[in-house]
Amino acid sequence: MLVHEVGFKRRNMEKLYDNRPIGVFDSGVGGLTVARSIRRSIPDEDIIYFGDTARVPYGNKSKDTIIRFAHEIVNFMIAKKVKMVVVACNTASSLSLQALKKTYDIPVIGVIVPGVKEAVKVSKNKRIGVIGTHSTVSSGAYVKELKKVSSRYRIFQGCCPLFVPLVENKMINDPVTFEMAGRYLKTFREKDIDTLILGCTHYPILKSVIGKVMKDVKLVDSSFAVAREVDSILRDKGLSAYGRKRSGKIKCFVSDNVEAFRNVASIFFKENLDIKKVIL
Amino acid sequence: MLVHEVGFKRRNMEKLYDNRPIGVFDSGVGGLTVARSIRRSIPDEDIIYFGDTARVPYGNKSKDTIIRFAHEIVNFMIAKKVKMVVVACNTASSLSLQALKKTYDIPVIGVIVPGVKEAVKVSKNKRIGVIGTHSTVSSGAYVKELKKVSSRYRIFQGCCPLFVPLVENKMINDPVTFEMAGRYLKTFREKDIDTLILGCTHYPILKSVIGKVMKDVKLVDSSFAVAREVDSILRDKGLSAYGRKRSGKIKCFVSDNVEAFRNVASIFFKENLDIKKVIL
Repeated sequence: MLVHEVGFKRRNMEKLYDNRPIGVFDSGVGGLTVARSIRRSIPDEDIIYFGDTARVPYGNKSKDTIIRFAHEIVNFMIAKKVKMVVVACNTASSLSLQALKKTYDIPVIGVIVPGVKEAVKVSKNKRIGVIGTHSTVSSGAYVKELKKVSSRYRIFQGCCPLFVPLVENKMINDPVTFEMAGRYLKTFREKDIDTLILGCTHYPILKSVIGKVMKDVKLVDSSFAVAREVDSILRDKGLSAYGRKRSGKIKCFVSDNVEAFRNVASIFFKENLDIKKVIL
Repeated sequence: MLVHEVGFKRRNMEKLYDNRPIGVFDSGVGGLTVARSIRRSIPDEDIIYFGDTARVPYGNKSKDTIIRFAHEIVNFMIAKKVKMVVVACNTASSLSLQALKKTYDIPVIGVIVPGVKEAVKVSKNKRIGVIGTHSTVSSGAYVKELKKVSSRYRIFQGCCPLFVPLVENKMINDPVTFEMAGRYLKTFREKDIDTLILGCTHYPILKSVIGKVMKDVKLVDSSFAVAREVDSILRDKGLSAYGRKRSGKIKCFVSDNVEAFRNVASIFFKENLDIKKVIL
């Protein structure tokens, strides 16, 4: 760790600070919802975002492949001197988080555990639904984490494969999207769940559609919970940025075309983004 | 070129034969439609198929990225001693064919020119539509090739971004697919085209849906035309396989999970496939 990266606050010698960036990655643009929540919660922090747009989507790909991609990305972030890594992609969190934690000695967190904590907080009847990509659902990652909290939770899972292309084609309030939401969520309506985890970064964009289909069901968008978790880890480990007169920056890296990313990113992020292409 | 690869037919010393395989590649499974047509037309030929399933789809990715991927794949095929390469993906054909032709000295063909030749053969009113992925359409590859034949063709293009996920989710005869076909093809109906090029390997799977929306319009599935082109090039160059008592084999390589490929491949190919995973 370099001297300029970690220091002591001038006025309070007891607290450490660390102005290195937080690394956030996703298969594409979707993880910007997490980056946005982190910026809102802890605006002093710099963020390095990586969107693997040359290989997006991850949702149908295998565990081995996702673990390989995730390592390549985290190696890149380590070279950029990040102080922690947030796996902002549900699929990558489900399939690669354990492998990443074993490999790196900086904190690495995913979106599954924060999402589960949030769901447990809001559910009253202990009947929780989870929707995600094919790979997330078949990994059983959410079920495993929920069962760790209590074996008394009843958990219902399903994947919604068309939601990602529908969002990326900006068909947010389209009758086709309503039709697909109706089909995908039908079984959940019959199961009397009171909480539904939106287990894919794209799904919060469809919150109003999903909310209309799943009336009176609490929808869990884990991005806020992730931001709180990031803040809490940074504080615990004395890794928070020194905030006086400081405003964090976000820098994006993508593995494919910059302009295509900028175009879809506008669905998720209103800031004008600094984006560079890198080949891993 | 090795001695065991090229030889003379025993009974006819004038003709050459060459039992090396033909390389066929696509971003994923879609190119199997082309492999299938080649097998039907010239069953003596061995085929090596590569599906880049770790990085699929290509349809929204940039020219630079697709050129990079295509070179990696063709290098792999060259190491497998293919005698020619068929770029069975419309997006890769549109964006990378010129670059590949410059790099390699074996014949490399794409699906655009055969598709155009077929369309020109069947169109009577010289008003031709082309549907494809975003990258294929914005490359203008079909328009350029059609204009080479005659500047008098009126060409209308459009992309159908949901068709690929609809096919891959096996929603072939679904009302949602009809709805999307109706929307995507509306402008084509108004343009009085008599021919529509299905400029993406997945679209022939939707032939019946597209056919119902585009009544009396000839649909061009270039896979048969590609197979004829392959046969003609092999004959011209004396590269055809020696067919006596010979039945060609197909061997598939994929960059992600074998079983996932096998599952979706069943939409396109009825044979039991020999599939291996390789990391490029």
